[in-house]
Amino acid sequence: MSTLIEQLIQALRFLPGVGPKSAQRMAFHILERDRKNGLTLAKILENAVTKVGHCKRCNTLTEEEFCTHCLDKRRDPGLLCIVETPADVIAIEQTRSYAGLYFVLMGHLSPLDGIGPEQIGVQSLLQLLDREPVREIILATNPTVEGEATAYYLANLIEPRKIKCSRIAYGVPMGGELEYLDGNTLARSFRGRREMER
Amino acid sequence: MSTLIEQLIQALRFLPGVGPKSAQRMAFHILERDRKNGLTLAKILENAVTKVGHCKRCNTLTEEEFCTHCLDKRRDPGLLCIVETPADVIAIEQTRSYAGLYFVLMGHLSPLDGIGPEQIGVQSLLQLLDREPVREIILATNPTVEGEATAYYLANLIEPRKIKCSRIAYGVPMGGELEYLDGNTLARSFRGRREMER
Repeated sequence: MSTLIEQLIQALRFLPGVGPKSAQRMAFHILERDRKNGLTLAKILENAVTKVGHCKRCNTLTEEEFCTHCLDKRRDPGLLCIVETPADVIAIEQTRSYAGLYFVLMGHLSPLDGIGPEQIGVQSLLQLLDREPVREIILATNPTVEGEATAYYLANLIEPRKIKCSRIAYGVPMGGELEYLDGNTLARSFRGRREMER
Repeated sequence: MSTLIEQLIQALRFLPGVGPKSAQRMAFHILERDRKNGLTLAKILENAVTKVGHCKRCNTLTEEEFCTHCLDKRRDPGLLCIVETPADVIAIEQTRSYAGLYFVLMGHLSPLDGIGPEQIGVQSLLQLLDREPVREIILATNPTVEGEATAYYLANLIEPRKIKCSRIAYGVPMGGELEYLDGNTLARSFRGRREMER
C-alpha cells in the first residue's frame, strides 16, 4: 500500500473509537469520494489544535478569552455548576433547565495518575468564589468513584465559605426498567425518594 | 460552544460512521488530551488529499506514478485480478494467497448514477491487455447486483481475446452457520459443490 495512505490510516486510528477497519474505511472514503471535505477537516483541525485554549473564568475550551456562557449577561451569576469536562457543559445546556454559570475542572481527582487539586484548577475556583456573588454551588461531577471523591473533596473545601453546596440527584434514569438496573442505583433511588407532587 | 470547536465537530461528522456524539467525543479527545496527534492528522490528511493520485497501470490509489504491487517484479504478470476498490486489493493481499497483479475499477457499473464503462476505466484495462502477457483474469468484483453486472460485462468484453476469465467462487463463508445463511448463498454453494479431496 502507498506510504501516504498507510500514514493516513495510522493517523486516523488515534481517534477514539476508530479501529483499523474504520480507519481504512475513512481514509478511502476521503480519497475516493470526498477530498474537498477532507481538506476542510485538515484545515479546521490544525486551526482548532493551535488556537483553542481555556476560558479565563470557567476553564472550558474556547478560542476566545472568555467562553460564550461566561459572557452571557442573562445567566444567573449566583448559581455555579461544577463539571468535569466541556462535554458535560454541552449535555447540561441541551437540557435547557439550567441558567447559571459553570466551572470546568477538565478532569477529576486521581492521585494515582498524579492529578491532584492543582491539576483540576482548585486555585482558580477559589479565586472565582472570592470574586463572584455565588450563593449555590451544584456539584455535577460524574457519579463514578473519582467523580464522587472529587465532589466530596470540593464540598469540604467550600464548607468554610458558607455557600450552599448541592449534589445532583442519584436515582433511576428516565425510561429505564427497574429490572435491569444495578442494585446500587436502585438503593440510592429509594434513599432519595420524594413525596409525590399532587 | 466555541465556533471553532463547533466547526471541528461538524467537519469530523462527514467521516463515514461518525454521528454527532462520536464527532463531539473525537473533538474533545483531540483538544483535551491529544493535540500533538491532532496536528499530525491534520498535516497528513492535507498531504494525502493533495498528493495521492492513481497508479498509471492498475488505477489504484497511490502518491507515486506506479503502486508497489505493479512495481513488484516477483509477481506473476500472467494473472490479473479485477476488483472494485483499493480496499479490495488490501483484503486480497491480507489472505497471502494471490501473487498476480491487479486492476482497480474504482467503482462498478451503475447506469442510473451515470457510471458507465468509461468511468470504471475499461479503456485502460483493454490497453493493459494489449500490452501485457495476461493468461488469466480473475473477476473479483463484489457479489452484489452491481458487482455481478460489472463482472458479466467485463467477461463479455474480454471474450474475443481468448483469455481465460474466472469469477471468484460463491458459497458458504467459513465459520458461518448454514441455519443463518440466506437461501441464495446456500443454493449457490450447492450448485458450486466440489468433490472432497481425500
